[in-house]
Amino acid sequence: MAYARGEWTMPPKVYVPAYPAGDFRAMPALGAGHAMVKWVTSFPGNPLQGLPTVMGLVLVSDASNGALRAVLDAAAVTALRTGAAAVLAAEELGSAGAGRAAVVGAGVNGRAAARTFLARGRSVVLWDVNQERARHVATELGAEQAEFAEEALSADIVVTVTPGHEVLFPEGSLRPGQHVSLMGADGPGKSEIAPAELARVRAFCDDWEQASHGGELVRAVEQGLLGQEDVGLLGDVVAGLAPGRAGDSEITAFDSTGLAIQDLAIAFAALEAKDDLPGLPRFEL
Amino acid sequence: MAYARGEWTMPPKVYVPAYPAGDFRAMPALGAGHAMVKWVTSFPGNPLQGLPTVMGLVLVSDASNGALRAVLDAAAVTALRTGAAAVLAAEELGSAGAGRAAVVGAGVNGRAAARTFLARGRSVVLWDVNQERARHVATELGAEQAEFAEEALSADIVVTVTPGHEVLFPEGSLRPGQHVSLMGADGPGKSEIAPAELARVRAFCDDWEQASHGGELVRAVEQGLLGQEDVGLLGDVVAGLAPGRAGDSEITAFDSTGLAIQDLAIAFAALEAKDDLPGLPRFEL
Repeated sequence: MAYARGEWTMPPKVYVPAYPAGDFRAMPALGAGHAMVKWVTSFPGNPLQGLPTVMGLVLVSDASNGALRAVLDAAAVTALRTGAAAVLAAEELGSAGAGRAAVVGAGVNGRAAARTFLARGRSVVLWDVNQERARHVATELGAEQAEFAEEALSADIVVTVTPGHEVLFPEGSLRPGQHVSLMGADGPGKSEIAPAELARVRAFCDDWEQASHGGELVRAVEQGLLGQEDVGLLGDVVAGLAPGRAGDSEITAFDSTGLAIQDLAIAFAALEAKDDLPGLPRFEL
Repeated sequence: MAYARGEWTMPPKVYVPAYPAGDFRAMPALGAGHAMVKWVTSFPGNPLQGLPTVMGLVLVSDASNGALRAVLDAAAVTALRTGAAAVLAAEELGSAGAGRAAVVGAGVNGRAAARTFLARGRSVVLWDVNQERARHVATELGAEQAEFAEEALSADIVVTVTPGHEVLFPEGSLRPGQHVSLMGADGPGKSEIAPAELARVRAFCDDWEQASHGGELVRAVEQGLLGQEDVGLLGDVVAGLAPGRAGDSEITAFDSTGLAIQDLAIAFAALEAKDDLPGLPRFEL
């Protein structure tokens, strides 16, 4: 909301490529009297070596004098904000009578989305190509496990948090009233939805610049199926600056690329919970 | 040298403005199997409140898997690399028979430049508008103190590390054979040399993009006095890819804006000294 209203700012994130192994991102943001940078990795092959895909630190400084106020684990902040963005989008853009949520992909961020839905009082069904992993996370969190991918993909609310190597939603696959939060595709060649399907439904994203250059929207924009005027911004909807879902039968899709302002908000929430930064503004959902 | 040869890379630094108090910079670099970001401030009014102008952290990660390898103090790294750049430029671009070096400005980075000259066996004379500060640093390091600014500004080698509010070198002031390393002006409205004087002498910089947008070169370029083809790169000279000083009577000026690759090199040097990162390449001057 603060970003949508122009109160918080965020320069574009900077990629430091170290391909084929992975990349680093430096993500700065400024808001509520503090400046932040998240230094965070994406090394998709790491789990095979017993290392996390996402590593790094979040540095929070006082914007009045530059003094460093906090250092947080970037993986924890990223998981919390990704889960929060997926659920916020589902709550804002899903139909009013939506039932349980499905989470496809039970990795770190999928687990975070499931945990956030459950904390908000919504039941969750999990699916993962690795059924053992899905069972483990479902048991840990108190979620159900889907027997087939189709069971998850047809839920009223679907959150996809996959590596983006496989299209989960081909053209025509989403049914009236469904909402999907697409969290997985955040770079070149990654997608969880077919461009034609994204163009067929009502599309939203977290940030037009990022999403049209590194998210699900890239191919749909390249193919001329979608333009900036066709895609809503979640922050504008939350702040009441733009309309959200138009009715119970509309299909909505949210393309998440991950924003530094979300990391800053999560850092504040964590620090408030520890009373390390008293007097910061609180954001009520 | 590694950057000049294309082995190390460096995306543009990102500014996070928090004016009028100051700004933050996120400075990433990639080299020798590691990725780095420096999160560093410039809050010029801080010393009046008993706080340093420059604060922050340097994060060094393994580029093969993203694991964080080291966290260093950004102020220490910045001072060491600024001092090293000033002295390297003076040794490369100064005349062969140059005598003692003068350092104008005895703050954190001026002190670092003086200390580096002394460590390299060159005597130093210091000047600062705050004569008490100059006396303190001169005594601490074993340097001389200049009685008048002119004594410093006429030395064979001059390093200026001032806030950039005052032009130290008006047109025609540098004499044949002199070299000046201009370290202070790193942002809009700051300069230590008149544009016409910079255009009159042989000009070098650390990075054309940065220097022509945020260094001494800005006004000379804006006024059409200098173009990219007129300005040498220190890295190219050090690597033997471009000519340096043309003769004993040439006047040379080096515009330093500060590079993330320099921070990365200093981080390696510090970690090598602690044997924390064995097997890293060593860079011989």
